[in-house]
Amino acid sequence: MTSVVGASIRETPLFWPVKTRRDGGLFVLDETCLPEALRYIAVDTPARAATVIRRMKTRAFGQFLLVARIMEHVAVAARGKPPGEVIRRLEAAAARLNASRPTFPFAEVTGMVVAWARGAVEVGRDPTAAVRETVRGYLEGIRRARLDRVRRLAELLKDGDGVLTLCHVSGELAMAVDWCRRRGRRIVTYVCETRPYLQGARLTAWELRRMGCRVVLIPDNAAGSLMADGLVSKVVVGSDRNSADGDFANKIGTYTLAVLAAEFEVPFYVLTQPSTATARGRDIPVEIRDERELLRAGGRRLFPTGVKGFYPAFDVVPARLVTERVPLRMAAEGGR
Amino acid sequence: MTSVVGASIRETPLFWPVKTRRDGGLFVLDETCLPEALRYIAVDTPARAATVIRRMKTRAFGQFLLVARIMEHVAVAARGKPPGEVIRRLEAAAARLNASRPTFPFAEVTGMVVAWARGAVEVGRDPTAAVRETVRGYLEGIRRARLDRVRRLAELLKDGDGVLTLCHVSGELAMAVDWCRRRGRRIVTYVCETRPYLQGARLTAWELRRMGCRVVLIPDNAAGSLMADGLVSKVVVGSDRNSADGDFANKIGTYTLAVLAAEFEVPFYVLTQPSTATARGRDIPVEIRDERELLRAGGRRLFPTGVKGFYPAFDVVPARLVTERVPLRMAAEGGR
Repeated sequence: MTSVVGASIRETPLFWPVKTRRDGGLFVLDETCLPEALRYIAVDTPARAATVIRRMKTRAFGQFLLVARIMEHVAVAARGKPPGEVIRRLEAAAARLNASRPTFPFAEVTGMVVAWARGAVEVGRDPTAAVRETVRGYLEGIRRARLDRVRRLAELLKDGDGVLTLCHVSGELAMAVDWCRRRGRRIVTYVCETRPYLQGARLTAWELRRMGCRVVLIPDNAAGSLMADGLVSKVVVGSDRNSADGDFANKIGTYTLAVLAAEFEVPFYVLTQPSTATARGRDIPVEIRDERELLRAGGRRLFPTGVKGFYPAFDVVPARLVTERVPLRMAAEGGR
Repeated sequence: MTSVVGASIRETPLFWPVKTRRDGGLFVLDETCLPEALRYIAVDTPARAATVIRRMKTRAFGQFLLVARIMEHVAVAARGKPPGEVIRRLEAAAARLNASRPTFPFAEVTGMVVAWARGAVEVGRDPTAAVRETVRGYLEGIRRARLDRVRRLAELLKDGDGVLTLCHVSGELAMAVDWCRRRGRRIVTYVCETRPYLQGARLTAWELRRMGCRVVLIPDNAAGSLMADGLVSKVVVGSDRNSADGDFANKIGTYTLAVLAAEFEVPFYVLTQPSTATARGRDIPVEIRDERELLRAGGRRLFPTGVKGFYPAFDVVPARLVTERVPLRMAAEGGR
């Protein structure tokens, strides 16, 4: 396998969707405005962050990043307060953020930040400075690990590949495909539109096209037909949560793609963060979204009263259907 | 199995979507206006019928019925003309109708009508009267056979069933579920919304709800998740075209449901008309619809220029994935 470490990777706005203003204010990319507008929302409190997450204005890696940064923001805003008060504020923020959506393991992120603050207090350090420094270092490590994962994903993609995906893999897939394209590999990415929020259409197709890549949008229900016709040589999906047994939760529809990939013997790759916090796939809680998100389209009610909608936001895919995991590889602590 | 022959079946407007005005004018139910309005379109020429079919204002059984009735209409309008002229007009109508959409075997229907006219001419009969009488008798036979199939389908559905379907099975599934409901069988029908035209949502969910049946609408990509959760005990789909080897074409997404049903060991039933006109599934031409039908939703363009859409309207399901066929059983000629 050719090593591509060090080769240039072009980023998309969705790769790192949280920005910091000069005065420390946070801004998060409003995905619901894409592709029409690249708009950022100011987020200055955990309550606001929780609302932004619940309304799916950011999701996947974006919500993780926002939670980590807003925890840092809370710590910084408490600068000079007694250590107990800093911890209390961080715990209150954590409680609110953890309750925003059920499937993504927010508690792992917020719990880590609270633990960093407690650890600092225990050794007599300023918890504000400790949280700020540790969150920044941690996120920088994740950034490097994600760029490295883009490189490893690019190594998996070959000239002539038809890559099928759904929803949005937080910019990494698009960046890998773009990298391949600039090196002359002809790749077509087939993107399931991903009802009802259409993230595949609005985010993935948009960013691939913006980078000059070949992208073909399909209705979610056409995936089997494309595989039967031999158009798909690889399936690549993200993951919102993993369990220790290798199962993973991702956007509803992922399980279906995994079953189809097995049926048609197409390799199925998942970008995944290993986790031991959840033992089994069946322990992952699946968020059921409001049926109105399904029953309305383009601002219009599609269906008569009495028709119920059922919109589970995720499904949990069994480990046996995964061909290969592409994990984040964090550098050793303190390393470059 | 309890025989239910003779028990009352309530019809839905979509079971027989073509009506005749007193002066002989034809009207077809405009499915694209449902569920907001129950509106009929006047269709008085083969050209108009072809347009209505191409625009998917009627489909599945509706388009079959419209084609048979407009052929009759052409024959009646040619009353008193020389036999050769009647045949010529029928052939011109057939050519136009056959070219309307590629997957459904219109040529089998129109060819049959032309053959009836020719047969009448050969034995010195008036082709107009012969076509009129034969089409009417033929359709009446189909009507009885479809009601009989509703009864047989109802016999397959049990108390406690979770039935998954997609698109719209021309009223038959809803009528069977309604029949079961009125006899105390508790059945939940899960309906895939069926992007991009949303026939599952607009037609199937609407007619089931209108009849008082329990219906739950799901995004197309949630079918695998529902099966994994054990909510689905049967899958029931229609078919637009069959081949002699048992493969069948139906709305895109059917293949995916068939693969999922096999994976989760859920019985997969297809309402099917046997045909020997097409030898193999791979001989069935799959219509590729205009990508704009996918790329727009609610009148709004969803995606930036450069993103291509791919919308095959059907997929062809291999016979091995079918648990049981529920065919039309036409009574012997001349029988009741």
